Amino acid sequence: MDEFAVIRDYFTRPPGPAAGARVGVGDDAAVLIVAPGRELVVTTDVLVAGRHFPVDTDPFSIGHKSLAVNLSDLAAMGAEPAWFTLGLAIPAADPDWLSGFSRGLFQLADRFGVSLVGGDTVSGPLTVAIQAAGTAPAGTAVLRRGAAPGDRIYVTGTVGDAGLALAVLAGGAPAVSNGDLAWLRARLERPLPRVREGIALRGLASAMIDVSDGVAADLGHVLEASGVAARVQLESLPLSDAVRRSTPRNAAAAALCAGDDYELCFTVAATAERRALDALCALECPCTRIGDIVAGAGLQVLDAQGRELAVPRAGFDHFAGPAT
Amino acid sequence: MDEFAVIRDYFTRPPGPAAGARVGVGDDAAVLIVAPGRELVVTTDVLVAGRHFPVDTDPFSIGHKSLAVNLSDLAAMGAEPAWFTLGLAIPAADPDWLSGFSRGLFQLADRFGVSLVGGDTVSGPLTVAIQAAGTAPAGTAVLRRGAAPGDRIYVTGTVGDAGLALAVLAGGAPAVSNGDLAWLRARLERPLPRVREGIALRGLASAMIDVSDGVAADLGHVLEASGVAARVQLESLPLSDAVRRSTPRNAAAAALCAGDDYELCFTVAATAERRALDALCALECPCTRIGDIVAGAGLQVLDAQGRELAVPRAGFDHFAGPAT
Repeated sequence: MDEFAVIRDYFTRPPGPAAGARVGVGDDAAVLIVAPGRELVVTTDVLVAGRHFPVDTDPFSIGHKSLAVNLSDLAAMGAEPAWFTLGLAIPAADPDWLSGFSRGLFQLADRFGVSLVGGDTVSGPLTVAIQAAGTAPAGTAVLRRGAAPGDRIYVTGTVGDAGLALAVLAGGAPAVSNGDLAWLRARLERPLPRVREGIALRGLASAMIDVSDGVAADLGHVLEASGVAARVQLESLPLSDAVRRSTPRNAAAAALCAGDDYELCFTVAATAERRALDALCALECPCTRIGDIVAGAGLQVLDAQGRELAVPRAGFDHFAGPAT
Repeated sequence: MDEFAVIRDYFTRPPGPAAGARVGVGDDAAVLIVAPGRELVVTTDVLVAGRHFPVDTDPFSIGHKSLAVNLSDLAAMGAEPAWFTLGLAIPAADPDWLSGFSRGLFQLADRFGVSLVGGDTVSGPLTVAIQAAGTAPAGTAVLRRGAAPGDRIYVTGTVGDAGLALAVLAGGAPAVSNGDLAWLRARLERPLPRVREGIALRGLASAMIDVSDGVAADLGHVLEASGVAARVQLESLPLSDAVRRSTPRNAAAAALCAGDDYELCFTVAATAERRALDALCALECPCTRIGDIVAGAGLQVLDAQGRELAVPRAGFDHFAGPAT
């Protein structure tokens, strides 16, 4: 029983009228109608020590990343972040740890003008549960379900960086230089959510998701929600120099299934493509076309010779595999 | 370093403009201006196995209580519950456990018309982090800071029940009959938040809080926020028959510092007292006047002979004492 089965079987029910929900469980975030002309976008992510980050990760990075993954979900909806709450279980009230954690948390919060408005601090195994909310003009939050045949598929930045960092730290990957490792670790531990980019793509992207479980898995969610298929060129996946240097032969294949990069993957109709690219260019955000939406179902990945690749069962299953 | 010091030192900062916050960290819930004429009330609570409930608690009760404590915070603000998100860390995806948990959760959600709109399910030590939101007409959420000298202090229902149940289950308390124990356990494990009562007291109560850490501790928060003192008559604390039978000599003193009852403690001006009592009476909710707000600072508790009692250091400190 994987995470999605748990959600489907036990926690998916149509919201009642009091919630004012345009979108409930099953997108990057819920969309709630709170006022005429304005919608509230709400998301939550839980990070567990030993599972989502190594127990000895520095507290600054834990604070940063806990908020970053939530802001990334808001970014994937095109929402402007407004506030968040913090549920924190910690084994002990260690001032050094708390100081580092809160600095990491607030430094990122300040960067995007988002405020901590409440929380609960309890004693327990280290767990960080953040819920973040943002707003968007009514009807504009970008959902997963809007992709249509003919749309182009784009990814911001580079993918596979965090996955390589994780593999190196776990001791099971090719050696990388110290300089590359420092950069890769920053990508893993202190990802910068694409908040401004997500907002800029509002009204332009037909569907959007953030890359948390890997391009294959996350694009798969878009395809499923939209009822379409995709054809992706493996060689077009945007890779960093650090990844290219480390795993020259299978870098793209690894990047396809690597999670934790918190880039945006979006689809855009041909008629809106130019404006979307201009908007990202104005933010100095690199983005790369990786394929196209086609009719049908499922994800087809082609190599440089046009041969179809078997895509490994994709995504990070929270109830399987080794702890990270 | 206790929970309140942690929050004060590391997590209290003025919210930025994007949050639209009327009240941020430090009340039962945050109050956010989301629309002309309407405010959003947001709260979050984290429950950790072995700390907030025994590890072998039945999953139905865990699901119920995890939501109940959040709805109780909304009740203490006089908000109408609308929706919640669920952050759930579980050691394994056990269908029996999940089924019981989700039934307990949704049965209570249905009772109050509140919808699950999102969540995150991960693998980890059993931890339930719920964030709940409700609404109220602009400016009407009942804060902790409105109590004034001359106001009367009331408590709904009875207090001390959950504390006695906890003591009995821990093996360190007077024997109680099986019938009493079943009732006390229900009070501990499946508390019913005073949602309707909280809404009914909107515009009437001058300050309100839910009794989660004990009357002494929670009333103490109201006094501190309002800049006033209180005089409470120990003998007037409302006790259940089960508590009276079990600990006839010191029941009231124990109840003063026992938490987890999720009753409402509120203050009301003399001019609004009749309407407040009528409103609760219409809901068939018992309530009891336990004392008065006076000028000054601190909580004074008097026994039947008018002698002042030393109030034990009050409240449940999440970073001290044995796990429950």
